[in-house]
Amino acid sequence: MIYLNELRIGENIRQTVYLCKTKQQLVSKQGKSYYSLLLQDKTGTADGKIWDITQGIEHFEAMDYIKIDAMVTEFQGEPQLKITRLQKCSEGEYDPADYIPVSKRNIEEMYGELKGQIASVKNKYLNELLTNCFINDKDFAKKFKEHSAAKNVHHGFMGGLLEHTTSVTRNCSYFAENYPMLNRDLLVTAAMLHDVGKIWELENFPQNDYSDEGQLLGHIYIGANYISGLIDNIQGFPQKLKNELIHCILAHHGELEYGSPKKPALAEALALSMADNLDAKMETMLELFESTDDNGWLGFQRLLDTNIRKTSK
Amino acid sequence: MIYLNELRIGENIRQTVYLCKTKQQLVSKQGKSYYSLLLQDKTGTADGKIWDITQGIEHFEAMDYIKIDAMVTEFQGEPQLKITRLQKCSEGEYDPADYIPVSKRNIEEMYGELKGQIASVKNKYLNELLTNCFINDKDFAKKFKEHSAAKNVHHGFMGGLLEHTTSVTRNCSYFAENYPMLNRDLLVTAAMLHDVGKIWELENFPQNDYSDEGQLLGHIYIGANYISGLIDNIQGFPQKLKNELIHCILAHHGELEYGSPKKPALAEALALSMADNLDAKMETMLELFESTDDNGWLGFQRLLDTNIRKTSK
Amino acid sequence: MIYLNELRIGENIRQTVYLCKTKQQLVSKQGKSYYSLLLQDKTGTADGKIWDITQGIEHFEAMDYIKIDAMVTEFQGEPQLKITRLQKCSEGEYDPADYIPVSKRNIEEMYGELKGQIASVKNKYLNELLTNCFINDKDFAKKFKEHSAAKNVHHGFMGGLLEHTTSVTRNCSYFAENYPMLNRDLLVTAAMLHDVGKIWELENFPQNDYSDEGQLLGHIYIGANYISGLIDNIQGFPQKLKNELIHCILAHHGELEYGSPKKPALAEALALSMADNLDAKMETMLELFESTDDNGWLGFQRLLDTNIRKTSK
Amino acid sequence: MIYLNELRIGENIRQTVYLCKTKQQLVSKQGKSYYSLLLQDKTGTADGKIWDITQGIEHFEAMDYIKIDAMVTEFQGEPQLKITRLQKCSEGEYDPADYIPVSKRNIEEMYGELKGQIASVKNKYLNELLTNCFINDKDFAKKFKEHSAAKNVHHGFMGGLLEHTTSVTRNCSYFAENYPMLNRDLLVTAAMLHDVGKIWELENFPQNDYSDEGQLLGHIYIGANYISGLIDNIQGFPQKLKNELIHCILAHHGELEYGSPKKPALAEALALSMADNLDAKMETMLELFESTDDNGWLGFQRLLDTNIRKTSK
Amino acid sequence: MIYLNELRIGENIRQTVYLCKTKQQLVSKQGKSYYSLLLQDKTGTADGKIWDITQGIEHFEAMDYIKIDAMVTEFQGEPQLKITRLQKCSEGEYDPADYIPVSKRNIEEMYGELKGQIASVKNKYLNELLTNCFINDKDFAKKFKEHSAAKNVHHGFMGGLLEHTTSVTRNCSYFAENYPMLNRDLLVTAAMLHDVGKIWELENFPQNDYSDEGQLLGHIYIGANYISGLIDNIQGFPQKLKNELIHCILAHHGELEYGSPKKPALAEALALSMADNLDAKMETMLELFESTDDNGWLGFQRLLDTNIRKTSK
Amino acid sequence: MIYLNELRIGENIRQTVYLCKTKQQLVSKQGKSYYSLLLQDKTGTADGKIWDITQGIEHFEAMDYIKIDAMVTEFQGEPQLKITRLQKCSEGEYDPADYIPVSKRNIEEMYGELKGQIASVKNKYLNELLTNCFINDKDFAKKFKEHSAAKNVHHGFMGGLLEHTTSVTRNCSYFAENYPMLNRDLLVTAAMLHDVGKIWELENFPQNDYSDEGQLLGHIYIGANYISGLIDNIQGFPQKLKNELIHCILAHHGELEYGSPKKPALAEALALSMADNLDAKMETMLELFESTDDNGWLGFQRLLDTNIRKTSK
Repeated sequence: MIYLNELRIGENIRQTVYLCKTKQQLVSKQGKSYYSLLLQDKTGTADGKIWDITQGIEHFEAMDYIKIDAMVTEFQGEPQLKITRLQKCSEGEYDPADYIPVSKRNIEEMYGELKGQIASVKNKYLNELLTNCFINDKDFAKKFKEHSAAKNVHHGFMGGLLEHTTSVTRNCSYFAENYPMLNRDLLVTAAMLHDVGKIWELENFPQNDYSDEGQLLGHIYIGANYISGLIDNIQGFPQKLKNELIHCILAHHGELEYGSPKKPALAEALALSMADNLDAKMETMLELFESTDDNGWLGFQRLLDTNIRKTSK
Repeated sequence: MIYLNELRIGENIRQTVYLCKTKQQLVSKQGKSYYSLLLQDKTGTADGKIWDITQGIEHFEAMDYIKIDAMVTEFQGEPQLKITRLQKCSEGEYDPADYIPVSKRNIEEMYGELKGQIASVKNKYLNELLTNCFINDKDFAKKFKEHSAAKNVHHGFMGGLLEHTTSVTRNCSYFAENYPMLNRDLLVTAAMLHDVGKIWELENFPQNDYSDEGQLLGHIYIGANYISGLIDNIQGFPQKLKNELIHCILAHHGELEYGSPKKPALAEALALSMADNLDAKMETMLELFESTDDNGWLGFQRLLDTNIRKTSK
Repeated sequence: MIYLNELRIGENIRQTVYLCKTKQQLVSKQGKSYYSLLLQDKTGTADGKIWDITQGIEHFEAMDYIKIDAMVTEFQGEPQLKITRLQKCSEGEYDPADYIPVSKRNIEEMYGELKGQIASVKNKYLNELLTNCFINDKDFAKKFKEHSAAKNVHHGFMGGLLEHTTSVTRNCSYFAENYPMLNRDLLVTAAMLHDVGKIWELENFPQNDYSDEGQLLGHIYIGANYISGLIDNIQGFPQKLKNELIHCILAHHGELEYGSPKKPALAEALALSMADNLDAKMETMLELFESTDDNGWLGFQRLLDTNIRKTSK
Repeated sequence: MIYLNELRIGENIRQTVYLCKTKQQLVSKQGKSYYSLLLQDKTGTADGKIWDITQGIEHFEAMDYIKIDAMVTEFQGEPQLKITRLQKCSEGEYDPADYIPVSKRNIEEMYGELKGQIASVKNKYLNELLTNCFINDKDFAKKFKEHSAAKNVHHGFMGGLLEHTTSVTRNCSYFAENYPMLNRDLLVTAAMLHDVGKIWELENFPQNDYSDEGQLLGHIYIGANYISGLIDNIQGFPQKLKNELIHCILAHHGELEYGSPKKPALAEALALSMADNLDAKMETMLELFESTDDNGWLGFQRLLDTNIRKTSK
Repeated sequence: MIYLNELRIGENIRQTVYLCKTKQQLVSKQGKSYYSLLLQDKTGTADGKIWDITQGIEHFEAMDYIKIDAMVTEFQGEPQLKITRLQKCSEGEYDPADYIPVSKRNIEEMYGELKGQIASVKNKYLNELLTNCFINDKDFAKKFKEHSAAKNVHHGFMGGLLEHTTSVTRNCSYFAENYPMLNRDLLVTAAMLHDVGKIWELENFPQNDYSDEGQLLGHIYIGANYISGLIDNIQGFPQKLKNELIHCILAHHGELEYGSPKKPALAEALALSMADNLDAKMETMLELFESTDDNGWLGFQRLLDTNIRKTSK
Repeated sequence: MIYLNELRIGENIRQTVYLCKTKQQLVSKQGKSYYSLLLQDKTGTADGKIWDITQGIEHFEAMDYIKIDAMVTEFQGEPQLKITRLQKCSEGEYDPADYIPVSKRNIEEMYGELKGQIASVKNKYLNELLTNCFINDKDFAKKFKEHSAAKNVHHGFMGGLLEHTTSVTRNCSYFAENYPMLNRDLLVTAAMLHDVGKIWELENFPQNDYSDEGQLLGHIYIGANYISGLIDNIQGFPQKLKNELIHCILAHHGELEYGSPKKPALAEALALSMADNLDAKMETMLELFESTDDNGWLGFQRLLDTNIRKTSK
């Protein structure tokens, strides 16, 4: 396949598959209907135009994978694909990993780590909760493994939610070691569950965009509400422990202005919010550094609210 | 009965009932155990001391109603009750309304108004939800009618939650009239439900203090979670409508820094937050004005972040 | 007439009238003088160019109505009018309502409502003030009826000031009903007068832009100063009432950082600021929803500081 | 006279005059009426009690000067005057300068400086405005010379408004020299007029407290409104100059959150706000240093938002 | 010895040693000189008075250890020592650990850990810097081991600076493991050095109060300046590495408003600021929990900006 | 020479020298290497392209002065230089003043003023410090005279640091006169030294961009550290005076959020921060006014956080 960042003006491509991220039907100034598409693969995006929608164009929708013939033209300095033939693909005709960003780490390996983290939780109610959530519910586990942790930054790729979750859990496990005041079981459980609401806040790939439910309710509420339901199915789960765990979920953004309806009031809630923030900041910096070959100052970064550069070797 | 704001230094009181708000067992500098109490009736509070706990003092706990004999002494310019005899009261020996603040409005009358507001909701799912919540669940209805809307300000009295709820609902009903863009049924339903979480956030009277669950989770999450459960028991309730209603509950404080995990994203959510804020501010001012005979400037008011005075006639 | 949003590339228009919003005389890179215009009608704006200013072009200025012959060409994807003939129009040759945004509501009907609101004010001094201002001063009344309430959002159209004023007054009238503590006459009077300073802060249509005085002084000071002058012509107007009314005007933005030199210190001032804010927010949302056919999420809205969407039916 | 900071426990004072700052009629715990007074002279304040109000006590009000016989007792470590005889004084029986804080500088000398500053203004309209305001209006001039610039800090003493005004004008005069871009006449005029509203915002001495008008309207609006009226009586005063001058008055607090309804938009307005702030900060520090003999760290100072100390010699 | 929290009203103490934290010479209302002292041991503080300073009272100063005879009286509910005899102690007559708060951990053990952390730094310049600072400079090492990390919270006890430093270094060591992007040597070195400026910002025990230099310059500047000097004595230390290390010191408070003159711009600076914040927050919570036997809600905590409670077991 | 703001589309320029501010080697869509340059002279900047890098193009780097032949073409409405011949210039072939912004004031004249200001400092230690810094160290003096005070605004031109420094010192000198509390020697010394760190924070012209050291450490720390070193070479310089002077440097931005690690705690530190702020604001306004011929409102200015206009004459 020819990746979108390799297109050369003037060449023709044939039978090549891209993901159609968006599709708009427009009317030209001359009064004729045409399609304007946004094509995507894992290297980026490109505009596509279908000026004649009556010939050789199968029916398709946004988010379909499409196989096209096209000429590479130039518009405002960027390549634009003038599509002359289009077929909708079936699963199996393409490898999704070519079209959406994926974690560099092996997903099953990370899932194995998560299972080990679950095994380390000794409190029987918390252990049962985690087992029910991440292991017994195969459907949930599949979604959790494939989900991203964000639309863009940070961990905005397939497996990103799992990668972020295991890393935050590792942080919390270390924190419990250095600060014996912390209740390890509560903290580590909250770490594993803190972002499960993102499964519903963000649509599955290839969309990976905010769902309507996500926009309205947010992953903090969605996750807390989901965990609350799981707990209600566990006989004898102590009410106080439930409230403490849900508190950790609600407070994990650390401050009201970051969307937590409660500030951390327990040591574990405070520790979780710091473990989460640490992982978010480190990954954000890493992604910024990896997005460029520049070793100098990268300019003001809105996400970190400052100018940054890589440290010298 | 002799109200606490009528005590005169030097007099003796006999067989008088007060609510024992707090009870501490302390040791005097001379090494002797004694009790320090905070007594309450609807006119205010007073300190009580039991220097000899071995004679004539029945067993009692904080939040019990107690019948006492005492001498009114003075400590640092305030009356202090030196208690010599104490019996614990049973229900029926006192009228709770003498000991805790109550709404000036008739509770059943307000409940009648609420039922009228429910009847005005035409959407069958929303109507069923409200009916199940406020009318069919007698236990809930009883609690809702007797609850306050706050520990102190505003509406921090028995019936306060009901008074605040009907007033906010009235505001929303008017808003829907003046702004036809608003979906009246959604807005009015959200108004009636917006603070139901306070039933669990604040303990019942006479405590009326934050519960452990309330401190950890807050009435916004508790309420949204409760309503979500009620909706799940209504067959065919549209998912989108559920999300919109829960959004209104989550967003009703208007800003993240006021504890809403989401800012209002729907016109109804925005309208509800303003209707709630209006009622809170008006009642806060009213309570401040009613707490004094002063017609001049009352000094800086933390709750309104400014100095205020009553308007001249 | 052909509205600017109906222009088709390639067609010629003849003897069509537009408002010339701005006019610049420029020199081309080849050293030749030409005019660059911004044309406007109620459907929007378009660029116009007069490459040859020596032939068939009458003298005109910005804000003149002009009758033109032109060819519709394309520049950077937008239609551009290449003007070959231009005459300046006299009043009567066009209907202003075709060229500037106007309220959807009937202006005289709204003015009738305002007169009714005035009639409801029982305090004789306040009633006289309102009558002098809005009814007896014909010149003022004319300007008030035709003015907008903003350069852009919200109510940035002819009649917008009147529409906003009557709506805020309606809100205040309702508030006085639900909150008997409020002095209805003072509140409703302040509501009608709160934005009169906008008559001088914004220039008349078709400009509707900030005046020099408006930029320097702002409508809050201008309005308070104007009302103060009107009051001084009313014999016996109580000084305290004057101060309270002026306070309501000064404080109607609610917070110092929104340009009020005083925070609301009277219940009526607080209520007015909330009535004004409510109307502003509701109209802003309405205008945003009406500006698009999209029923989904509209993206981050700076004016509301959040992402929004229309509520589902 | 015996100053209040020289009272010794146990001594008796006779026929000594103090200012009675406040007077409350209270009822003792034993049911008897008594007066509680706050006495003031320029060295500070002391409590006074009149336990028997029926014998030897003439009728008097708060803010009267009173001549008393009293015994100096001790209450909570502070001297308290037990008053047994009280006569109300007439003007002439006391020197106000003994009872209220006064500027260390000579008032007429400062007024002379102000007249010199007026004479330096060459623009005839501005010069006429200043002359009308500060020189021709004898009544205004008298009040201006005796007024303070604040209730407490800074310049909260008789002559303080004049002292502050001449100092800010001196600053502005220097600024105009170092920054030739500045319009000296406009700047210096605005400096002299910037705080005239304080004459009505604060009551005259001995009260020197916020007036009702001051609380409701503030000195910024009051002053701008007053100057606007003066200008309207000057034939031919240019409208643009008027707006620019009023803008300087409105913007002189520099930021909306400090009560200016407009931020400085002209160089002179910006310069004035900085000249005013400089004088306020320097005087605040000076007053803090003069209030103590301590040469070390004075602790956190709310007015300067930091801990401060005098510089070593 | 009798600890201050064990004093009983009415008893006499003899030949007991306390630290005299402050000493004031005052004049009684009756005109007689006396001393007012603040006495301290590790259990708290108590007031002391020497009414007769002429008999049996040796010369002493604040911060001396004094051996006293006294009677325990009561003042405003607290014990007060009426001192009748006083001798100044020499070193050896008391154990400082009885008078000032000390770390619960063994200081030499922590210092051993620090040496191990230094040994783990492979970069020869950084290793030399750390060795010169913490090991070769015996005088510095002694001060570093005995210093606190704060006047009050957190780690406001002898050995607190060392305890905080080793814990933050442990955090950073873990961070470098979980986030391979981090330059371990730079990060761990910065961790050990980040608070060395506190040695001069806070006076040695028993004072442990801000020094004049500390108030004026702060530990961030003092530390950076000190490290800069040390580096200049190391031949060949790379300039870029020096700048990066100093940057980490300057930025370790994370935000300008917390006193860092630069925001973290390197990954290691960001990581250090989070490791420091984590340790500060955890220790603050621990100290709050240890200061009370209460297992319930502790009320609003200014240092954490929220109400907190211990987690249930 | 032909200045960049005088280029006309279509003409050819020959043997003209510009400063090459930036140079990028790019690859065209057709796969061919070319250079994209940013050319600069004192009138502004222009794009340059070298499509054929193999013919007539000498080796050069960014920040070289280059002599070119080129054709003036148009790209997106702006002139673009199509370069066909390029030679690198040696010093002497051009006058730097044609290529970089320079102060309008004479540098030696300003330096003379600075020497006069030094002479006015009577304290012998401070005088010696200033003499060592600005007069005896010729190398430093040369750099100080040629440096700017900013990358862009304000005083972002050659000599700008000197111009700003003398003006701030003049302000401080005046302040010391109007506020006798101020220690003139300390204040005026701090004024002269306050921005010396900028010599290392910004690279020399023609770059005038932030250095790596500047980004990491900032001119406040760099300057304080430098002055500290100078003082350590002066025998007998009092430690307290050193701390006070360094404090003034550290605190001269006035607020933590503006990058000062300490708030002004001495009167001189506060005065310096205000003198600096005044000069910055006045120069910013002046530069904005001088950058346009427009006498009307200039629109929102981010640097002043408001819309501004020139005052009418």
